[in-house]
Amino acid sequence: MAGTKYAYVKKFELADVLLPGTFMVLRLDGHGFHRFSQDHDFAKPNDERALQLMDRAASDVMAEFKDIVLAFGESDEYSFLFKKSSTLYNRRHAKILTTVTSLFTSSYVMHWSEYFPSTRLSSLPSFDGRIIIYPSTREVRDYFSWRQADTHINNLYNTTFWALVQQGGQTTAQAHETLRGTVSKTKHEILFSQFGVNYNDVAERYRKGSVLVREPLTMEDEEDERKKQKPKLYSTITMHHCDIIEDRFWTARPHLLE
Amino acid sequence: MAGTKYAYVKKFELADVLLPGTFMVLRLDGHGFHRFSQDHDFAKPNDERALQLMDRAASDVMAEFKDIVLAFGESDEYSFLFKKSSTLYNRRHAKILTTVTSLFTSSYVMHWSEYFPSTRLSSLPSFDGRIIIYPSTREVRDYFSWRQADTHINNLYNTTFWALVQQGGQTTAQAHETLRGTVSKTKHEILFSQFGVNYNDVAERYRKGSVLVREPLTMEDEEDERKKQKPKLYSTITMHHCDIIEDRFWTARPHLLE
Amino acid sequence: MAGTKYAYVKKFELADVLLPGTFMVLRLDGHGFHRFSQDHDFAKPNDERALQLMDRAASDVMAEFKDIVLAFGESDEYSFLFKKSSTLYNRRHAKILTTVTSLFTSSYVMHWSEYFPSTRLSSLPSFDGRIIIYPSTREVRDYFSWRQADTHINNLYNTTFWALVQQGGQTTAQAHETLRGTVSKTKHEILFSQFGVNYNDVAERYRKGSVLVREPLTMEDEEDERKKQKPKLYSTITMHHCDIIEDRFWTARPHLLE
Amino acid sequence: MAGTKYAYVKKFELADVLLPGTFMVLRLDGHGFHRFSQDHDFAKPNDERALQLMDRAASDVMAEFKDIVLAFGESDEYSFLFKKSSTLYNRRHAKILTTVTSLFTSSYVMHWSEYFPSTRLSSLPSFDGRIIIYPSTREVRDYFSWRQADTHINNLYNTTFWALVQQGGQTTAQAHETLRGTVSKTKHEILFSQFGVNYNDVAERYRKGSVLVREPLTMEDEEDERKKQKPKLYSTITMHHCDIIEDRFWTARPHLLE
Repeated sequence: MAGTKYAYVKKFELADVLLPGTFMVLRLDGHGFHRFSQDHDFAKPNDERALQLMDRAASDVMAEFKDIVLAFGESDEYSFLFKKSSTLYNRRHAKILTTVTSLFTSSYVMHWSEYFPSTRLSSLPSFDGRIIIYPSTREVRDYFSWRQADTHINNLYNTTFWALVQQGGQTTAQAHETLRGTVSKTKHEILFSQFGVNYNDVAERYRKGSVLVREPLTMEDEEDERKKQKPKLYSTITMHHCDIIEDRFWTARPHLLE
Repeated sequence: MAGTKYAYVKKFELADVLLPGTFMVLRLDGHGFHRFSQDHDFAKPNDERALQLMDRAASDVMAEFKDIVLAFGESDEYSFLFKKSSTLYNRRHAKILTTVTSLFTSSYVMHWSEYFPSTRLSSLPSFDGRIIIYPSTREVRDYFSWRQADTHINNLYNTTFWALVQQGGQTTAQAHETLRGTVSKTKHEILFSQFGVNYNDVAERYRKGSVLVREPLTMEDEEDERKKQKPKLYSTITMHHCDIIEDRFWTARPHLLE
Repeated sequence: MAGTKYAYVKKFELADVLLPGTFMVLRLDGHGFHRFSQDHDFAKPNDERALQLMDRAASDVMAEFKDIVLAFGESDEYSFLFKKSSTLYNRRHAKILTTVTSLFTSSYVMHWSEYFPSTRLSSLPSFDGRIIIYPSTREVRDYFSWRQADTHINNLYNTTFWALVQQGGQTTAQAHETLRGTVSKTKHEILFSQFGVNYNDVAERYRKGSVLVREPLTMEDEEDERKKQKPKLYSTITMHHCDIIEDRFWTARPHLLE
Repeated sequence: MAGTKYAYVKKFELADVLLPGTFMVLRLDGHGFHRFSQDHDFAKPNDERALQLMDRAASDVMAEFKDIVLAFGESDEYSFLFKKSSTLYNRRHAKILTTVTSLFTSSYVMHWSEYFPSTRLSSLPSFDGRIIIYPSTREVRDYFSWRQADTHINNLYNTTFWALVQQGGQTTAQAHETLRGTVSKTKHEILFSQFGVNYNDVAERYRKGSVLVREPLTMEDEEDERKKQKPKLYSTITMHHCDIIEDRFWTARPHLLE
């Protein structure tokens, strides 16, 4: 058969199975989004539409990959947690990594016009991804704490920075200078004393990021679904903008770390 | 600083550098495209628009990643060859793999409506990708021969199969039965005797696939560019539907395998 | 400087760090020991001297690598458990794997004549090794249960087999035939009824394998050491031939799985 | 069957195949040999016996592993080149790495007393190993050039250093100070003017290291072997202390890089 003599090149495709019994976290980051956000006039410090579009793409990913039980998004990044027992694609690294990255990108572009009805896509948005393996729940908890702490730090800085620029009349260079070396408390004070902004009143979406959770459906829910003659669902995805550093979020959802 | 105590989780991001001095081939495959092509009424055995859209996405990838010197596409797959000396992203596996996969997907969705003006995207197209490392030019040549031989085998089968169905009135089950175990010559004969089709007259795009080549610009070309006050270009991308199994294609372009 | 122009070849030595926060189990297996044991007249079914020599080599390994907290040996294999928090050689795979394998081999050859005073080494004993990563205590427990269950299965078979041959006058082919498809109970009965052997009276070393444990020294022990003006020790290694499948062994030594 | 429920732990043993079509170079280094050489009174700057013992162990490795076509040794390190087409152990990384390391160690210890008849082994010699993958002959050549250039640099330094100490009466600190920042020419002059030593007369083993080559046997050789009723040999191993940086060595032995 034609082609047979070339088929040996398949032997160079080596196995890339991820360690069983571990938590996979897949993180996507906008590629060159500093430039992309300028080109498409994202509002500063946060663009509600852009964040909602990220959430939409993440929801589409979770709808497709049932083994993802949790996702956390901020700015132009999103992290997805797979359940420990996942055997998706036999845990092949490249396969999992690329299908998720590709689906997220696909959704982001496809739904762009819904969230930016008056802004044409003038360049191609893209995302890079990686999978990190965590052996225990402690590290998974700390990973998500790390991302949410990062959200807080960045948002407090950016909120203060853009207040100084947009309302305070500073140049961006001056605003950087004003904030150099300041602690959180100082930024809170600048916001409050100069701009009348109580940081705690800033939208939770901006301060906490987006948390997508796969919630198992209760029996009653399933009953309802059946009556409506719809295909049976076993889980639903809910969105929150809440603290995931403290224990409360996790103890209420023990299935996430099982 | 908040977040510092969680930063240890970064240590779990292990290095994933690809062996230097080797050829990277990145292959993308449509994910679930059997279903996707049915949902969007792709013409059988080949949908010109769909192939052109693949070529467009591949071109966008090559425009962005200058280290890709060659690409070959057929059906819902595309393979990209990086030059041996590439140090893109310090040859980090996940970074290269995901940015290319994501950009391709982004372009595919963004340009969909140009190629399918009257067909709305009703589901999310996505692609999976992998990188295969080849140590020598022999294996690179054989890899692309393998893909083009595959193009030929599939297209001859599909062309005959759909002629039997669309023109010959067979069911798909009957057509499969008719072709079971047949050699190439038999399929050529069926096409010619029953449907008056000389297979060699079938469009080269379908028989040979698409070949995208990065061609270095000559001095004269650069001169022209400069006069037009455009940013200087060092290469241009050309498309071909030609044989890449024989030596001729490669000996005319020694830079591809340098 | 001479040699500088060649130093780029070091770039091909890629990082091979093992995932942090996991248990490393390093297992060594005698290479071609079926032949080696025949060449050196090992007693059947068990050679006390050979097992003691394995234990000696394992002890030397544990004396050198303080991060190994447990080892289990049977026949010509030995498994070593590293504590989860080990940062030995920054968890570089090849470095850990080869230094342990080499030290074990070195000790085995060096101490051969102590255990086989009248048998000259006529060929080179060698061992192959591998490191397996386990994310949780459950898998570590099950790994060692797997090895000890294997010890039991093999020893019961071999004990019965060699009784049939050595005392029962069967050929090895006949003995294999006698035992084909038999369950444990049948082997126990053969041993008891035909050879008067109560399997439970067989030496624990043969039935349970060898268990080497790093035990932390108590304060009193350290006090004693100090009085004798010896270098301070923080742990000591003890040998056991006991059950490690049940919980008892582990609950008495919580430090092993910390 | 007992043990079956634990066998899942085998799934954690992931594939570790080395890229086909590449040259494997396995390098062993003495572990803690600075101390080991002092404990066993190795002569300075070179100990002929120790080098010969290294060569012996390397020869034993090459006698066992027919896919090793070349080895280069200096000081307490040895590098082994596998032929590109090797499929030893299906190119499994840990298996190849550990069996070679173990066999080398075994031979080193077993033959110690032949080379050091009056020096008892007072501590365990051991070696660490790594495998480096090279895609082309250029890099293989440069790898061995790198090691031999290193041999030259170290030996010139050490020869001069120990002449200053042993014959010149300097302390080691003084000798280090004398040589700090000196170029090769200066060291040659010190050796010649102060100690009457023409460096080029130093034994080639010290200046060039040891080169072990697998030479294919010619037909005539095979004929001879057959007459002697010995098992047929297809290759023999020869030792050289010659230049392997220039082309000459390699062009005379094209089979090494095939």
